[in-house]
Amino acid sequence: MSADAAFFVSRWVPAPAHVSDLGRDAGLPAGFRAAGVASGLKGDGVLDLGLLVCDSSATTSAARFAASAALAAPVLVCRERCRLDALRVVVANSGCANAATGRRGLDEAARTQGAAAAAAGVDPAQVAVASTGVIGVLLDGTKVVGGLRDAAAELRADGDRDFARAIMTTDAFDKRAALRVELEGGTVHLSAQAKGAGMMSPRFATMLCFVQTDAVLAPETADLLLGVCVKRSFDRISVDGQLSTNDTALLMASGASGVTVAPESSDEVRFGEALDALLRQLALLIVGDGEGARRVGRVVVRGGERVELVARAVADSPLVKTALHGGDPNWGRIVQAVGGALAGPEQVPMDVTIEGMQVCSAGTAVAFDEVELARAVDRPEVEYEIALPGEGAETEVFFSDLSHRYVTINADYTT
Amino acid sequence: MSADAAFFVSRWVPAPAHVSDLGRDAGLPAGFRAAGVASGLKGDGVLDLGLLVCDSSATTSAARFAASAALAAPVLVCRERCRLDALRVVVANSGCANAATGRRGLDEAARTQGAAAAAAGVDPAQVAVASTGVIGVLLDGTKVVGGLRDAAAELRADGDRDFARAIMTTDAFDKRAALRVELEGGTVHLSAQAKGAGMMSPRFATMLCFVQTDAVLAPETADLLLGVCVKRSFDRISVDGQLSTNDTALLMASGASGVTVAPESSDEVRFGEALDALLRQLALLIVGDGEGARRVGRVVVRGGERVELVARAVADSPLVKTALHGGDPNWGRIVQAVGGALAGPEQVPMDVTIEGMQVCSAGTAVAFDEVELARAVDRPEVEYEIALPGEGAETEVFFSDLSHRYVTINADYTT
Repeated sequence: MSADAAFFVSRWVPAPAHVSDLGRDAGLPAGFRAAGVASGLKGDGVLDLGLLVCDSSATTSAARFAASAALAAPVLVCRERCRLDALRVVVANSGCANAATGRRGLDEAARTQGAAAAAAGVDPAQVAVASTGVIGVLLDGTKVVGGLRDAAAELRADGDRDFARAIMTTDAFDKRAALRVELEGGTVHLSAQAKGAGMMSPRFATMLCFVQTDAVLAPETADLLLGVCVKRSFDRISVDGQLSTNDTALLMASGASGVTVAPESSDEVRFGEALDALLRQLALLIVGDGEGARRVGRVVVRGGERVELVARAVADSPLVKTALHGGDPNWGRIVQAVGGALAGPEQVPMDVTIEGMQVCSAGTAVAFDEVELARAVDRPEVEYEIALPGEGAETEVFFSDLSHRYVTINADYTT
Repeated sequence: MSADAAFFVSRWVPAPAHVSDLGRDAGLPAGFRAAGVASGLKGDGVLDLGLLVCDSSATTSAARFAASAALAAPVLVCRERCRLDALRVVVANSGCANAATGRRGLDEAARTQGAAAAAAGVDPAQVAVASTGVIGVLLDGTKVVGGLRDAAAELRADGDRDFARAIMTTDAFDKRAALRVELEGGTVHLSAQAKGAGMMSPRFATMLCFVQTDAVLAPETADLLLGVCVKRSFDRISVDGQLSTNDTALLMASGASGVTVAPESSDEVRFGEALDALLRQLALLIVGDGEGARRVGRVVVRGGERVELVARAVADSPLVKTALHGGDPNWGRIVQAVGGALAGPEQVPMDVTIEGMQVCSAGTAVAFDEVELARAVDRPEVEYEIALPGEGAETEVFFSDLSHRYVTINADYTT
């Protein structure tokens, strides 16, 4: 189906039977065009500005944003000035987060929004803006407006490649997909472009992700499905536990296929499964590109309560992350991270299992095959299971290791 | 006063006028003897077992321990089987944390306690045990008991040097001090031996620290002063935000000087100031030895509420820590860390000042001298001040940077 590497590469995200990978270069679903240009924000002719337009006036959409108490100007503009259920245009730049820029930052974001609306011939309230890059630097709206003129002239059905590249920061590779989804009512398409490598936390995407489909979706359906799928994907990953100021995830539906995904229909389930697999695999690609990451860990925590707290503590523990990096079967660090997360007078007996091998029972070391465990943690994906007292609650977090390259990337350059 | 480097090296811990640094090799206060031996826990003749004994039957003491929900066996034994107000002996080993070792770990810790009590001729309840090293490995009590025999034969008034070396793990240098304190009632002495480099969190010491004095202290006074000073020192540092399973801080007073520190006296204030300076400087030495650390940061947060949450979030942010390491004046990461810590619908306008230079006012970037700021953050100690809305609350956390060596130390070896 695909000329290049398969999209569904993780054992944790099996592709649903009714979903086909069309390959990265299959282009956008009907109704969408995109472009990526060099506006000068980054200099040296590097792509830094993406424009995505839906030609249908019937487009529906849904959006989710970061929860930070220091939100960037583009997020505030989207939340306050957009019709989030009827977005038709996305303008996204890299090289500048336009965060901590106050009133002037809001003005520049709004200016970008207005210029894109004029270029695409839509209401400014239908233009979403998104930025990623250094915090504390004002967006140069003049460069963006100039770049938008170029981008509008270059919009193409296969422009998602340049669009995805234009939103990269410390990403080692661009993250995109094109899928075909067989519904009972007909065939629809899904595509997505995402960026993200650092400043990632489980509490939300901490990244940019733009999803397009030619299915006919009521705005309420788009919002429901995006909300559920973000909770199961970008909300469950961590590179460094650092919540971003700029997270944005958008779903836009052109309706060009004429195939309707009706509320509470079996096709809603099928479309939801496809969107879920798409976002979960994209989330894992982001973790796998976690600023120098060598491996991806998955921690599953079960018990009566506080499973979320514990899963995040393990995923964000620099001691667990360095052990994952080194392929070190040092399970004691998991016990330490859980003990720290649940600090208090009560001692908490826990079971710990790594790749199916139990290493700790009720808080006490048990005998296991050390050679086999060492081999198991030296693979690209490592799974940890933690059982706390009680039952009824379960969660998972996917996380990257902590590497020399993370330090190099973040210590040696202003990013 | 001292033949080697001065103890009070940080600008954040000025030595009180009535406190003199006697130099690292001045030995223990009257009444105390110590030794450090190679028991075979680490092998290759490396010192790994420390014994410290107070000869006075009138010794008083106080103790503080980690808050982990997965406490190590030695901590549980101290908490459950010791007279913490009348400790006379400390046995501390490196090379094995004896954590996550269940009932057998408790038995081995108790066996150690009993053997030391017999060697020193004291009640087992007067023997504190402490361990540091790999989690999940049972302490080899046979080696420890054998080592205790050697140690008992080598106890000396200047044995604190070997004792301090025997408790090191990833520490790059041993941490100890000997101070003379002029009280109105006479002269007393303070000495301390500490270890710690990684698995450090602000919620408590995450290290071992043993303090001795020849002052006469009621147990209540010892407990009060140790409690206050731990809160202002080991409780305010972070290397990696990782709460340990084995933290232990002990203060023992032999009374050999005959100088009494009476409750609510001016000498209690003077002695408290000395203990405070001692523990704060030791805490900073631990941060400065933070597994590859190049610099120490101090973040001060002021505002109406949630200052503790924000200070910890900044101190533990890998993005802030890598910027500190690189000497990168990337203050946007501080805004990001604060925004993430206070995540929610409310936007929080904050002021950020680095080394006295304001870079952010009410959440918005302000102009500053970039060359001067770059120079200021390239020094061994860097101070960050954050002002949140409201007033009345203030806190500080000292933290290390995140370096390549941290990754090397923690990824490449089981520690």
